[in-house]
Amino acid sequence: MLRVGVVGATGYTALEVIKLLLRHPEVQLTVATSRQSGSPLLSSVHPALASRCDLRLEDLGPIAVADRADVIMMCLPHGVVTEWVPQLLAAGRKVVDFSADYRLHDAGVYKDWYGHTHGDPERLGKIAYGLPELFRKQIVGAQMVANPGCYPTSAILALAPLLKAGLIEPHGLIIDSKSGVSGAGREPKLTTHFPECNESLSAYNIGRHRHTPEIEQVLRQASGADIGLIFTPHLIPMDRGILTTAYSLPRGDVSEEQAFTALREFYANEPFVRVVDHLPGTKDCVDTNFCDITVRRVRDRLITVSCIDNLIKGAAGAAVQNFNLMCGFAETTALR
Amino acid sequence: MLRVGVVGATGYTALEVIKLLLRHPEVQLTVATSRQSGSPLLSSVHPALASRCDLRLEDLGPIAVADRADVIMMCLPHGVVTEWVPQLLAAGRKVVDFSADYRLHDAGVYKDWYGHTHGDPERLGKIAYGLPELFRKQIVGAQMVANPGCYPTSAILALAPLLKAGLIEPHGLIIDSKSGVSGAGREPKLTTHFPECNESLSAYNIGRHRHTPEIEQVLRQASGADIGLIFTPHLIPMDRGILTTAYSLPRGDVSEEQAFTALREFYANEPFVRVVDHLPGTKDCVDTNFCDITVRRVRDRLITVSCIDNLIKGAAGAAVQNFNLMCGFAETTALR
Amino acid sequence: MLRVGVVGATGYTALEVIKLLLRHPEVQLTVATSRQSGSPLLSSVHPALASRCDLRLEDLGPIAVADRADVIMMCLPHGVVTEWVPQLLAAGRKVVDFSADYRLHDAGVYKDWYGHTHGDPERLGKIAYGLPELFRKQIVGAQMVANPGCYPTSAILALAPLLKAGLIEPHGLIIDSKSGVSGAGREPKLTTHFPECNESLSAYNIGRHRHTPEIEQVLRQASGADIGLIFTPHLIPMDRGILTTAYSLPRGDVSEEQAFTALREFYANEPFVRVVDHLPGTKDCVDTNFCDITVRRVRDRLITVSCIDNLIKGAAGAAVQNFNLMCGFAETTALR
Amino acid sequence: MLRVGVVGATGYTALEVIKLLLRHPEVQLTVATSRQSGSPLLSSVHPALASRCDLRLEDLGPIAVADRADVIMMCLPHGVVTEWVPQLLAAGRKVVDFSADYRLHDAGVYKDWYGHTHGDPERLGKIAYGLPELFRKQIVGAQMVANPGCYPTSAILALAPLLKAGLIEPHGLIIDSKSGVSGAGREPKLTTHFPECNESLSAYNIGRHRHTPEIEQVLRQASGADIGLIFTPHLIPMDRGILTTAYSLPRGDVSEEQAFTALREFYANEPFVRVVDHLPGTKDCVDTNFCDITVRRVRDRLITVSCIDNLIKGAAGAAVQNFNLMCGFAETTALR
Repeated sequence: MLRVGVVGATGYTALEVIKLLLRHPEVQLTVATSRQSGSPLLSSVHPALASRCDLRLEDLGPIAVADRADVIMMCLPHGVVTEWVPQLLAAGRKVVDFSADYRLHDAGVYKDWYGHTHGDPERLGKIAYGLPELFRKQIVGAQMVANPGCYPTSAILALAPLLKAGLIEPHGLIIDSKSGVSGAGREPKLTTHFPECNESLSAYNIGRHRHTPEIEQVLRQASGADIGLIFTPHLIPMDRGILTTAYSLPRGDVSEEQAFTALREFYANEPFVRVVDHLPGTKDCVDTNFCDITVRRVRDRLITVSCIDNLIKGAAGAAVQNFNLMCGFAETTALR
Repeated sequence: MLRVGVVGATGYTALEVIKLLLRHPEVQLTVATSRQSGSPLLSSVHPALASRCDLRLEDLGPIAVADRADVIMMCLPHGVVTEWVPQLLAAGRKVVDFSADYRLHDAGVYKDWYGHTHGDPERLGKIAYGLPELFRKQIVGAQMVANPGCYPTSAILALAPLLKAGLIEPHGLIIDSKSGVSGAGREPKLTTHFPECNESLSAYNIGRHRHTPEIEQVLRQASGADIGLIFTPHLIPMDRGILTTAYSLPRGDVSEEQAFTALREFYANEPFVRVVDHLPGTKDCVDTNFCDITVRRVRDRLITVSCIDNLIKGAAGAAVQNFNLMCGFAETTALR
Repeated sequence: MLRVGVVGATGYTALEVIKLLLRHPEVQLTVATSRQSGSPLLSSVHPALASRCDLRLEDLGPIAVADRADVIMMCLPHGVVTEWVPQLLAAGRKVVDFSADYRLHDAGVYKDWYGHTHGDPERLGKIAYGLPELFRKQIVGAQMVANPGCYPTSAILALAPLLKAGLIEPHGLIIDSKSGVSGAGREPKLTTHFPECNESLSAYNIGRHRHTPEIEQVLRQASGADIGLIFTPHLIPMDRGILTTAYSLPRGDVSEEQAFTALREFYANEPFVRVVDHLPGTKDCVDTNFCDITVRRVRDRLITVSCIDNLIKGAAGAAVQNFNLMCGFAETTALR
Repeated sequence: MLRVGVVGATGYTALEVIKLLLRHPEVQLTVATSRQSGSPLLSSVHPALASRCDLRLEDLGPIAVADRADVIMMCLPHGVVTEWVPQLLAAGRKVVDFSADYRLHDAGVYKDWYGHTHGDPERLGKIAYGLPELFRKQIVGAQMVANPGCYPTSAILALAPLLKAGLIEPHGLIIDSKSGVSGAGREPKLTTHFPECNESLSAYNIGRHRHTPEIEQVLRQASGADIGLIFTPHLIPMDRGILTTAYSLPRGDVSEEQAFTALREFYANEPFVRVVDHLPGTKDCVDTNFCDITVRRVRDRLITVSCIDNLIKGAAGAAVQNFNLMCGFAETTALR
């Protein structure tokens, strides 16, 4: 039985990871933190947890958390995490970090996209990227994992096998992604105020979304080539789900069948990727850790369509999958 | 051509009244205010108005507004309005007040429900309540009108004719109302954050909603009797629309047919109330100034179901209807 | 390990019961039926089941199903079920029936509300009503259970304890219920066509909904008194969730506190009912087997608000809870 | 005063054109048809029209309609229209055709994409394409107009000015479109059943959508060059609105500013296209005849984002705009 703590427990990804871990037979949730004062019940902030979890939200620092948990789910925003990680690791704790802070390998790229100097640059490049389908070896037994971004998970899982198989060009990639509103977090803002975004649809952060360099880095690793891509996220009036439509240039006369074969072979033994013939809908994956992928050849392009639940395979489910691999449990524990 | 100003122009009801007035052949919108600095374009706050309205949001007080408008649409929240109204009226301007400040006749009741002392108590009871179907005589030519609340409009239009006709008891009324989220205003809050209220449904302010005394007051006027009612609002995951299901005790063996007849006669000449045989849906009324009403006799109760668009017949449409009556225009101008 | 079959496996409640049973450690799903020809994969009809369940939809009758399953989840519509049940029971199989066919005890009442003569009248009144919170003794070890309707579950769980405790009158009950659209089933119809019901809200079947006599019967059993109630269902633009607002007459000066105490005591040991202080939202219960209940005293009424997921506690979750009790498993297996 | 008839009046685009025409000062709606028997009131099929329109749905043919209307809004599906048009035109009537039947100029292309031989091939290429921003000259005074498809309107308005100005390549165009569900029509189907498509997101008809050759044809006309494009439509859980994100290859080092300038100049005098700096949301255009367009340069691409209301600028609003031009009314009549 491992003691698990959740740092930054008031948001949506924290809620999902708590719900998953409540089902995990080898986990005891021992601590949940937030900066709120008064130690309110976790269930007062997440009423869905009433009678399921009697933890309180405590305003604690890394030392106190390390004292009460063997593994820490870090659900803090980027920029803050580097104040925690060195101390948690020094105390011998395992960490799954939901933020972007340890995903990029290059502190300069980090600064370019996140706007501030990285707080723990020497560790960059040494933390496993938590996409088991590509990096399982580095994740198994690791002390820390950088949990992937939601958009990158949907894009990389669709494109990496085709790049690795040499079926598509590494340049000219157009990644058009659509996400439900929970991806924007739990902080009320005008753009996510119900009467603003309900029954509406918009693109945002065109050319400036911070998941761009993350996708590039991982696809570069996968392909061994420089990557040229455009990433455009859109906000969709639904709670959960990401669908990514990616347009790539097939090499030569690569057929739809060849692309399917490459995807099917790559994911033959993966428990959470389903290569499907039909065009998937996000609802097929919602509340699961699955990623559904299909591919079509249309004229001079291959078009992949991939779906995930942004809060599960795009965050909390991937975190539990990584946790299982880090700690030696069956990879699918608490996820099926 | 009348010059019309909108005070507090950043919210949803202001946007709707502006859109309606842009269609009004006798209106020129001359001024729009908010406390934002820098005089941004109104269309920067309401992108739907781009190329349709070149007004800027100015941070002005009552004197400046009175100088530039003949009629003022007051879209400020309650409590603030009493700082404006005396000056606007003294300057000879006409006012349609969207807030609750001049609806109740009793300053004590106001204080009980709104929590602060009324700022202009001597005017209470002298301002016409802007429900033309009941108070047209007082509205025609009036200098000021208190525009009704959205829930009260839906409830009163269903119940007042039955009370006036003596077909139902004035006590034992159960008013169960359901509203879209735009009724909560444009200020982002956790309860109206998309991933919180989307795909969910809840009751709120049970026994404490401030529209309760407003409904009671008007039904008391309509029936001449003391009113006993319960009012329960619910938040529905949709933009617009109120549906009110009201349960009343028929007097004696009053039939469904008698109730229909009373409603049909009462509204025979009304341009914006439709007494319908079918069970109406809010969508039938959205983007219109209509109120749809039906009635059923079930066992020992009469059940009325009434629908409006909370932003139109429940706010901006009613305001324009009142404006037309106050200023001598055809009542339906800009509303059909 | 019990072999479980699902009869009528193409609808929403069937999908949910399959997803729950896939998590049940003592269950093997062995057969799924529908009248579709060609034995399509279950996952072709429910893409969410891809890679999780390799059953095919077979067009089988009761004998064939009894041959391949120990327990049968009957997800057929009312009227058809009576053609199956006698044979399944005669073959010694256990049955959880999702339809309304065995809920009512009186064949005459059945005919009045369902419009046809009951096909197996001598069994009426002998089948346990599958609400464990009220009828656990009859369910434990039973061969067959009539799984409750979704609206009745939400209404009965809120009102029965207050009636049993003698805190409210058995007459004058107003039950105003609101349900997500999945309650209407999976058959496409104009009323549930997305552009018709999305962003709209309506009441339906006023005074004629078939759950009315079911609620009456169970509340009569609970109170030992004749019940007088009005039940009004509403269609809400969301997938799942029922919220029931019930208005009752307190006996004498029964207080909110007394009502809370009665609810808390009644549900003290229940794993799936949460008596909460706050006003619950349906989202708190979605995807869980919980029913959340609260109560308020307003003027001359007690108002209970209760929430469930109509597909889980209102159907598939209750079925698994009943299955566990019938078969001797821990009641919460596969449900937490 | 022109007499206008609506053929095929039960669908969503018919409802919208009727609502718009009710506001048109020079129009009298004289006839509405459908194949339903019994001549039901139009408002029984469209409850929103109650008290606004007392027409009945009549099962009439072209001769009878030509007898009672000067201008006909043809809201029938493709394939059927060719049975009407020759007779209506021969009778001297004006026609706005909402279907795809007269949009394509080539009967072979029509057969390839629509699967049947065109019923009136000699008229192809002679009917004005009803996009006034590109073809106003042909529309003014025309006897018949082929009203554009909704997706083509959103894509063409964004891309044609850039092609005409020579700023982008005519090949390598990626058009990723997202539409609300009303675009799928009013016929209930499983894919548009509320619990199926609500809270979900999917691509459909990849590489096979019939609007592809329509976009190609018009962009070819605009650019004078062969067009190479990919068009991918997506279904979004909202009623109305299309957002099209189009990726094109700038010629040389064409800047964002140059692209903006080309768009602004092209639409300088257009009443219904707004070139905006911000990223538009579909809600800005819903219930209006506007198309909002913006452009971004990201790396090696220009990205245009364009929004319309699929039922207004994408259908009924465009039809009224065309009607105004055909009949000599001010172009914006009934549209602002």
